[in-house]
Amino acid sequence: MNGAESLVRTLVASDVDVCFTNPGTSEMHFVAALDRVDGMRCVLGLFEGVVTGAADGYARMADKPAATLLHLGPGLGNGIANLHNAKKAYSPMVNIVGEHATYHIEHDAPLTSDIEGVARPMSDWIKTSTSAADVARDGAEAITIARTGQGKIATLILPGDTAWNEGGEPTVAAPPPAREKVSEESLRAAADALTGGKQTVLFLTASALREDALHLAGRIAEKTGCRLLCQTSNGRLQRGAGRVSISKLPYPVDMALGALKDVDNLILVGAKPPVAFFAYPNKPNVLTPEGCNVLRVSWPDDDHLDALARLADLVNATGSTPLLQAAHRPEPAKGVLDVDKLAACIGANIPENGIVVNEAVTAGRGFHAATLGCPPHDWLDLTGGAIGDGIPMSVGAAIACPDRPVLCLEGDGSGMYTLQGLWTMARENLNVTVVIFANRSYAILRHELTNVGAENPGRKAIDMLTLDRPTLDWVDMARGMGVDAAKATTGEELDALLKRGLSTPGPFLIEAIYTP
Amino acid sequence: MNGAESLVRTLVASDVDVCFTNPGTSEMHFVAALDRVDGMRCVLGLFEGVVTGAADGYARMADKPAATLLHLGPGLGNGIANLHNAKKAYSPMVNIVGEHATYHIEHDAPLTSDIEGVARPMSDWIKTSTSAADVARDGAEAITIARTGQGKIATLILPGDTAWNEGGEPTVAAPPPAREKVSEESLRAAADALTGGKQTVLFLTASALREDALHLAGRIAEKTGCRLLCQTSNGRLQRGAGRVSISKLPYPVDMALGALKDVDNLILVGAKPPVAFFAYPNKPNVLTPEGCNVLRVSWPDDDHLDALARLADLVNATGSTPLLQAAHRPEPAKGVLDVDKLAACIGANIPENGIVVNEAVTAGRGFHAATLGCPPHDWLDLTGGAIGDGIPMSVGAAIACPDRPVLCLEGDGSGMYTLQGLWTMARENLNVTVVIFANRSYAILRHELTNVGAENPGRKAIDMLTLDRPTLDWVDMARGMGVDAAKATTGEELDALLKRGLSTPGPFLIEAIYTP
Repeated sequence: MNGAESLVRTLVASDVDVCFTNPGTSEMHFVAALDRVDGMRCVLGLFEGVVTGAADGYARMADKPAATLLHLGPGLGNGIANLHNAKKAYSPMVNIVGEHATYHIEHDAPLTSDIEGVARPMSDWIKTSTSAADVARDGAEAITIARTGQGKIATLILPGDTAWNEGGEPTVAAPPPAREKVSEESLRAAADALTGGKQTVLFLTASALREDALHLAGRIAEKTGCRLLCQTSNGRLQRGAGRVSISKLPYPVDMALGALKDVDNLILVGAKPPVAFFAYPNKPNVLTPEGCNVLRVSWPDDDHLDALARLADLVNATGSTPLLQAAHRPEPAKGVLDVDKLAACIGANIPENGIVVNEAVTAGRGFHAATLGCPPHDWLDLTGGAIGDGIPMSVGAAIACPDRPVLCLEGDGSGMYTLQGLWTMARENLNVTVVIFANRSYAILRHELTNVGAENPGRKAIDMLTLDRPTLDWVDMARGMGVDAAKATTGEELDALLKRGLSTPGPFLIEAIYTP
Repeated sequence: MNGAESLVRTLVASDVDVCFTNPGTSEMHFVAALDRVDGMRCVLGLFEGVVTGAADGYARMADKPAATLLHLGPGLGNGIANLHNAKKAYSPMVNIVGEHATYHIEHDAPLTSDIEGVARPMSDWIKTSTSAADVARDGAEAITIARTGQGKIATLILPGDTAWNEGGEPTVAAPPPAREKVSEESLRAAADALTGGKQTVLFLTASALREDALHLAGRIAEKTGCRLLCQTSNGRLQRGAGRVSISKLPYPVDMALGALKDVDNLILVGAKPPVAFFAYPNKPNVLTPEGCNVLRVSWPDDDHLDALARLADLVNATGSTPLLQAAHRPEPAKGVLDVDKLAACIGANIPENGIVVNEAVTAGRGFHAATLGCPPHDWLDLTGGAIGDGIPMSVGAAIACPDRPVLCLEGDGSGMYTLQGLWTMARENLNVTVVIFANRSYAILRHELTNVGAENPGRKAIDMLTLDRPTLDWVDMARGMGVDAAKATTGEELDALLKRGLSTPGPFLIEAIYTP
């Protein structure tokens, strides 16, 4: 069998059974092998940012890697913004990138580029296979790496002749090493901080935000009086009625400083020390107050569940009853849409066991509070700030969880980066309701222009931040890609369209036009 | 003045007066400076692939660099596929990439990444400014580098504090060094080959394909009987009635081998030795026949016009009259569209002094022959094989040459990569007629699947190569971005719509549905 087929067989045998693809000539043997090997679901994206973003969403919900299939350096390049987001979310992923045949690279044909160089900034592991006999073993190594810790980005580069030559020998990926248990000393230091009578915050991210881990954190909070806080952006947060609620560190610097101002001890569980998303002139970028004691319980790859269980033991919280979120939904809003009414309509409609993919940026500032008491759901954030992850992530989440409704909350500026993902939703008949919050501008940048001290912008500056002239029509664009769509300008319309989208199989897009 | 303003002033003073932008927070000071400095035209793209592709098209037609303004590593990442194409076209370009403030980078905020690493594979020069006082000088260096030789990609990374701090001192870029004159020995060797009575080919690219250089090559051909051939893909070819015509090396390997099979001497003028676009099992990848003598007259950056003039002198061709292309247009086709009828309709409508941007891939295989005798025009190819350059390049070409009609010939698969460029055409009211050749598949890959030896593809493989289920509707998508559009399924319809698009100001899109 050829190298490509040995790789497909290795992926399937190792439980990597979804591949998001945008192939080219150098990947044709991999594509041809798909019909000879059972068990691999292939999903085509019409742009590579859709492919890598979908793999990110899939990994967050499936807790295992998907493969991607990408075409040489430029194809990988088109996908690296969403690889960046995936890396910041600690999503496992196995990228398979075609390369020219080994003997062809030296000739510098038009598509020749430094593929390892393109891969390096956004990959945790990179390898270029050198022969058909190595491909399966290299693929197995990539899978093991991807599954290590919270998740890694593994990029395997496959020269054409290693794919088409005979000699492939399928194998099975070794299981990853168990996640590291954290040291007793760091737990003891955290326990001392928690029980020392000072203002203490448990600051969490990664798998510490799953229901079971949050339940343990809730016990610790109940027992010790500490506050629970998570990063502004997280790969996946399990929340809603009956779960332990957690506040998010606010994005605006002044609000974040306010949230942390009296904190004596900040205990990191998987999280990084809190810093501003951007630095601004004349504002601090480190968000913890002077003199705050920052302790680390666990790194992102560590076993947070074990750490929190042992920490609960140390502070005698194992028997505590955590405070659970009460069920509550806002009433859907009425009248012309604004930011508050958007939040009310979303809060009124998040479905039981739904998956919310949030890239609403400006429109979303009221969403957290309005949705705390919704039925239990998963919440996926834009983790790396590289806009254009929302539509693709929704594709991947829907593939991972076909029985769960996906609600994609998307800004109009962000949505334009990877709108091609709508076509994949239509082709795969995915159960996704996309809401585009149309303010016809990069509204966040209007704030940022002031934040960086650039007062009174003129027409040329404003032109760089607005999406009007002409107005984007998302209903037309969605229909052009086979997705049914409608516009909402009032709370009544948005509420009715959300109910329609969420109760009807297949994708549906709502363009919610609002005043920022 | 702050560093950002000093950079804008340096760009304008150095005749870099167009900036294609997709800014974020870290670029806000640059944006704010635009209203304080006269003379910079800023053009917003809603995705960075549009920005870099537009800068490529602009550079090819303006013969000088545009600036781009991009947001950190992921923003640059979204643009690198078209930077790859620009690099392969030797297009000059000055990329300005925002970065976190120097003191913020260590904190690994969500948008932090290795920007130099992202830039490296597709840049000829990279620098990260370290203080506001350096920004203008660094920018001037980038401009000089970009203008060196045929053109370079210069990437300047601008940490936020170097943009907002005071101390900026505008300057003016030094002129680039003159293009190298080629050595007398290499010209003599070429002259000997040309006059030795053997089959000789002049193989050209880069500025050797401008009208004046081709006129000299035509004299040499008339005098010595050599053939003129150019690379399959070239940045800009000046062609049409009254000019010296040049054949293209065919893309398919067997046809390319045929075109070169009896060649004794191949003389490179700017070009690389001819190799296959991809290697295939059991086919040669080097396209020159065994024993062919490959000589180099000039490298891409050399002065080709001087080289060809001196070579013409050496072979006593200075007084020769080159063969000029006769005027000829095909009749527009009638009836249901196929590849031949597409070619006839395009040939019947290329306008005088038009700019043709060609990314038609499969649909375009008859275009070269059908358009040889059209009125004089410029022809811009996809140079790096990274599809998604056509719509953006058309934006840039139209900005560079506002008085010339642009005809964008685009595949449906390729067009989807950067369809966001349609919005920029509408906003800037650019005189571009876009024809989308809709075969509802990655048709080229259907051929390639056979070429690589993968026979009888099954349903899963075919699914990865087709764009149906659902069918893309380009008229809806274009209207959604503010571009008027219509469908053509017959020659009569395509001909009428081409005449309408080319005679009406502003953008127009035609979806030409044909049977491959």
